[in-house]
Amino acid sequence: MEGECRVAVVLPAGGCGERLGGCTPKQYCPVLGRPLISRTLEAFERVGWISDIVVVVAPESVDLMKNIIRRYGHKLVSLVEGGVTRHRSIFNGLRAFVEDHSLGPALKKPEVVIIHDAVRPFVDEETLLQVTSATRQYGAAGMVRPLVSTVIAPSSDGCLDHSLDRAKHRASEMPQAFLFDVLYKAYLQCSDYDLDFGTECLHLALAYSKTRAKLLEGPPDLWKVTYKRDLYAAESIIKDGISKHLCIITNIKEEAVQIGFRLHENLKSHIKHVKAISLSMCRTVQDMQNIFQGQCYNFVYINVTDSDLEESCKLIDLLQAAQAGASYQSVVVSVHLAFPEQSGSEMQKLSKIRELAKEVQKSDLLLYGLLINFSKEESQLEDGARQASAIITALITDRNPALTGQVMVV
Amino acid sequence: MEGECRVAVVLPAGGCGERLGGCTPKQYCPVLGRPLISRTLEAFERVGWISDIVVVVAPESVDLMKNIIRRYGHKLVSLVEGGVTRHRSIFNGLRAFVEDHSLGPALKKPEVVIIHDAVRPFVDEETLLQVTSATRQYGAAGMVRPLVSTVIAPSSDGCLDHSLDRAKHRASEMPQAFLFDVLYKAYLQCSDYDLDFGTECLHLALAYSKTRAKLLEGPPDLWKVTYKRDLYAAESIIKDGISKHLCIITNIKEEAVQIGFRLHENLKSHIKHVKAISLSMCRTVQDMQNIFQGQCYNFVYINVTDSDLEESCKLIDLLQAAQAGASYQSVVVSVHLAFPEQSGSEMQKLSKIRELAKEVQKSDLLLYGLLINFSKEESQLEDGARQASAIITALITDRNPALTGQVMVV
Repeated sequence: MEGECRVAVVLPAGGCGERLGGCTPKQYCPVLGRPLISRTLEAFERVGWISDIVVVVAPESVDLMKNIIRRYGHKLVSLVEGGVTRHRSIFNGLRAFVEDHSLGPALKKPEVVIIHDAVRPFVDEETLLQVTSATRQYGAAGMVRPLVSTVIAPSSDGCLDHSLDRAKHRASEMPQAFLFDVLYKAYLQCSDYDLDFGTECLHLALAYSKTRAKLLEGPPDLWKVTYKRDLYAAESIIKDGISKHLCIITNIKEEAVQIGFRLHENLKSHIKHVKAISLSMCRTVQDMQNIFQGQCYNFVYINVTDSDLEESCKLIDLLQAAQAGASYQSVVVSVHLAFPEQSGSEMQKLSKIRELAKEVQKSDLLLYGLLINFSKEESQLEDGARQASAIITALITDRNPALTGQVMVV
Repeated sequence: MEGECRVAVVLPAGGCGERLGGCTPKQYCPVLGRPLISRTLEAFERVGWISDIVVVVAPESVDLMKNIIRRYGHKLVSLVEGGVTRHRSIFNGLRAFVEDHSLGPALKKPEVVIIHDAVRPFVDEETLLQVTSATRQYGAAGMVRPLVSTVIAPSSDGCLDHSLDRAKHRASEMPQAFLFDVLYKAYLQCSDYDLDFGTECLHLALAYSKTRAKLLEGPPDLWKVTYKRDLYAAESIIKDGISKHLCIITNIKEEAVQIGFRLHENLKSHIKHVKAISLSMCRTVQDMQNIFQGQCYNFVYINVTDSDLEESCKLIDLLQAAQAGASYQSVVVSVHLAFPEQSGSEMQKLSKIRELAKEVQKSDLLLYGLLINFSKEESQLEDGARQASAIITALITDRNPALTGQVMVV
């Protein structure tokens, strides 16, 4: 976004949650251990040109939300207490830019305000840019999607009255954006009926500010997490996203390099971006931070002679430091080689991994062990690498905390 | 359904797949290894009162579909070749009850025909019963759901023209049902435009057979698998469903019973239905079939002295026989106890589990090992059972084939 345009976000997060009954409102449900709303906030905070995010929460959720902000280090967020309906909550959010509010002083008024839902975590910068640009041109803009189901109108006796032409209608999604004054004026002028029973901000801008919003076709990822199945889907999408990068770290022992090379080849068919580096490139926290700049949450460390885990511990210390405050838990698979002449003893020593895993899980590392029976025979070595790659991929895909500290064997 | 009413199903499965472009049509996508459409067919076959299922497939998918029918033993299915649009496909499906068709002779005409989608696998008997009963009363009926998003109408220049009142509209979902003659007559009389551009069977029944369909509020599970995220959701829902039952089998050695009792107590907080039985109740295939009558896909077998796996093998043989042709892969966790005096040797013997797991995976059993270090100390024993329960739950929840044969240790 060009520097001269101030853009802020209002995120209505639950009003009083009256529609959800007894359940935890979806925005607070943990997805991979982290509340959904925190991921939505992160999506906005990644965008450099957003000045403020006003989160409108139910009075009973203020403390919960304060904890989330602290725990996940959200920087741009101001809290405002919500009203009893979605529109009243958004109105409260807008007021925070005009007057002091219950939870703090007035914020600097933006030119454009983006309205989004706390339960749509996959909003991207491109979409925000589009909706903001269109708003500067048209006064208002909103994302739409094709209808998945035909929309029909029931008669009063619960029978079909008529069905709508799917091609002529769209589902209204979020984000939407407005010139601040357009939306604020609409809220000041609209009726109590609108505030209590309306759902569509675009409609208010049209009815009360005579602003016809530009409609933009959005990507499917903008969907709203509504049902339990949507939480499942969100979790899978996030898992997918953080399983795309893998860094293989090897020490320079010949066997480690041999195995590292084969794992690299095999893992490329499971994982999109696989990078292999030498342990000598991972000596400082800065090294680790540079390697993937926060994009990588998966590490395989191959070591040969390190059954007392000393070297592993050093590497894990660096990872812990480099990943402090990261968005997701990292997976570390510690690969060890067993040679025929030392059968049995390896496994016993590796039981230490269980203790270590328990320790590092506190700082969001999921540590697993993998013992490869080393063979000098080419085809056996290749077969082992193939199986090891399948196991590594499974551990990264599932990211199951209950299996940390376990040593897999191939 | 009362005996006198013949009810058949028409399942349009992809027409020519023209809307899907290059991707595999969703109905053929594997979910937990099995094509989605096969799960939808199973949902209908579980209902005793359905006489025929006509699946309408694209000409290029006939062989694929024949393989699916053979592989998963679908009994009621007749195949018909689809037309270029959804309506033309459904019309082809209905014709199969009136005249001989490209892939076989005419079927016996039903009183009621249910139209469903191949990509809505979670339809249940209660819903089918409701829609069929309403059809016998009203001539037609369809399931509806509240709108998740507001529906809006764009103007020709891509701006908001108006938004619809959410409370007055519904999303039209499947299944729908019709008196056969009502729908068939509508298709005979409707225009080419309807056949090419229409989407809603309920509308055709209204327009051409003067039948106002009864609208019924359906459960959220009827949603249509449309996007990749829906496949994720479907997989999670199926995994959830088959992870609800667990059977713990113990031999009668004192330590096995001790551990079995503790696992039972701990697992109850993770898994809804946990049943513990003695090995002596699992002597024949019939025994195994009776235990859960196909509802249970998860078994924990606890044995003390069986590090050569002889007893485990016997049990697994029974399970294989009892589960032959089952809908899902079963998980078997083989629990072994290690005593302080035999340290090390246990683990080595258990490496046999890897070979065995590879073998039984061919017949859809996922076998994992779990070694519990037995302690006579009460609190350690309890702690071990707690950790073991978390691991068993993880294995059942993830059902990851790449980890079969691995031995977890607590």
